Amino acid sequence: MSTSGAPPDDPLAIVCGAGNMPFRVADAVIGRGRRVVLLALTGWADPVQVARYRHYWARFGQLGYLSRIARQEGCRDIVFIGAVTRPAITQLRFDLRTLMVLPRIIKAFAGGDDHLLTRVSRIVENEGFRLLGPHEVAPEILVPAGQLGRHAPGERDRADIAVGQALLAATGPFDIGQAVVVAGNRVIAIEAAEGTDRMLARIAQLRREGVLKLPEKSGVLVKAPKPSQDRRFDLPSVGVRTVEAAVAASLAGIAVEARGAVTADLDEMVRQADAAGLFVVGVPADEPTRG
Amino acid sequence: MSTSGAPPDDPLAIVCGAGNMPFRVADAVIGRGRRVVLLALTGWADPVQVARYRHYWARFGQLGYLSRIARQEGCRDIVFIGAVTRPAITQLRFDLRTLMVLPRIIKAFAGGDDHLLTRVSRIVENEGFRLLGPHEVAPEILVPAGQLGRHAPGERDRADIAVGQALLAATGPFDIGQAVVVAGNRVIAIEAAEGTDRMLARIAQLRREGVLKLPEKSGVLVKAPKPSQDRRFDLPSVGVRTVEAAVAASLAGIAVEARGAVTADLDEMVRQADAAGLFVVGVPADEPTRG
Repeated sequence: MSTSGAPPDDPLAIVCGAGNMPFRVADAVIGRGRRVVLLALTGWADPVQVARYRHYWARFGQLGYLSRIARQEGCRDIVFIGAVTRPAITQLRFDLRTLMVLPRIIKAFAGGDDHLLTRVSRIVENEGFRLLGPHEVAPEILVPAGQLGRHAPGERDRADIAVGQALLAATGPFDIGQAVVVAGNRVIAIEAAEGTDRMLARIAQLRREGVLKLPEKSGVLVKAPKPSQDRRFDLPSVGVRTVEAAVAASLAGIAVEARGAVTADLDEMVRQADAAGLFVVGVPADEPTRG
Repeated sequence: MSTSGAPPDDPLAIVCGAGNMPFRVADAVIGRGRRVVLLALTGWADPVQVARYRHYWARFGQLGYLSRIARQEGCRDIVFIGAVTRPAITQLRFDLRTLMVLPRIIKAFAGGDDHLLTRVSRIVENEGFRLLGPHEVAPEILVPAGQLGRHAPGERDRADIAVGQALLAATGPFDIGQAVVVAGNRVIAIEAAEGTDRMLARIAQLRREGVLKLPEKSGVLVKAPKPSQDRRFDLPSVGVRTVEAAVAASLAGIAVEARGAVTADLDEMVRQADAAGLFVVGVPADEPTRG
């Protein structure tokens, strides 16, 4: 048993999807003195970065194999990190263990994302592991509160942020993507299955086509976690690509619920936002107009 | 003065935007024995159809001219019908009367659609006219309750309709487009500034690209008026194009709040839905699962 404050003796099992986040978290955990074992998902995880760590490759659906590896490596804690788009049932390769829980997984696929993730987490816990959230093992990935770059939201932007937060609170119970764009008090886009990047691309297109007639550099992207969301799995994330998409959509800025979203590249993201004249703020959940 | 039940003596002034709806309404009003005068908006109203009626042409923004014509023609009631996308302020041609109310119009443009329409209606009423809704002078354009074609929603579709109606009730206060698509209990698209046709085109694209993995012919388009909506102006509308877009998106059907939406071509719409295997239902606002 480790003394309080010291890193746990058992290595952390990190199931890696796409993106840089798994490696930012792995580095943060290693920096605290804990070992990691990467369980990299073929087709999603970046092989070049995976190679820098102790790792195994597996396919989505091979829960039995993943459990066996994690147990062999002496892991007690497991964390899922990175984007894994909902795969087609025909693309999955199932092993015996997964086949045993397949009815539960199929049931999960039939519901919204929340159901899928909740059920996967139950399966992992039934295997005897403790499921942790990326931000629990690496709190530095959480977007902090306050103005994060050189630019600050104006009065009008703060009003837009308040509208966005109120709308997200209203749609929270419906298990949909938690991002909206508000411009001049008007809700111009709500994210559902398309994801944040496509929603922002839509705004860019509506502006180009003259369907949306808004002043340049107006409108705010507002992101917040669902009230019902299992934060161990699926906190919303922002990054350099979010800034690029917001610039293309000619927005004034980005407002994220402070400590309610994660980012793998905060410094680079803020640098790009500064250069483009965009504000980035972490807003408290209950004080939407504080900036 | 006309006796109760007889058509009013004064002709109805119909301000015509785009689409077939103005002419369906005009025909219905004429069928009841009342004269009409069309005030056709250049660039929006269909000149070929306008020519069949007593009419004048005007530009968006020429409120003073429209009022003068309507008064000359002896009109006391006025109705606005047809799509008029929010024009760029630079495309407008203003006359003196409009310039006098311009500050109010600019203020209206800054808010959501509801504000714009509410303010325009006040301006019309300040000119001494009574503003009516298209469905008040031609109730036959309202979508009726019940199964409207050959196909009926299944149990799963009814569940999707209930989710859609609940979500629309939650977003109602936010002055956004009132249409959503729900498939297998999952909300896959919410309409805001892009409009229903573009939202459905997005679903078609997400399916083609494999981002949305759903069984063929699943999912329901659910439309309802905003709770706060001024029904004289802006009831949601459905028609043949809605069916075409729903077929392209591979949906199972369309559910519209009964008497809460209008259609210019119900028969043709239902014929096309029947041919494509789509259901079309008018659902009561308070009994979402009744089909």
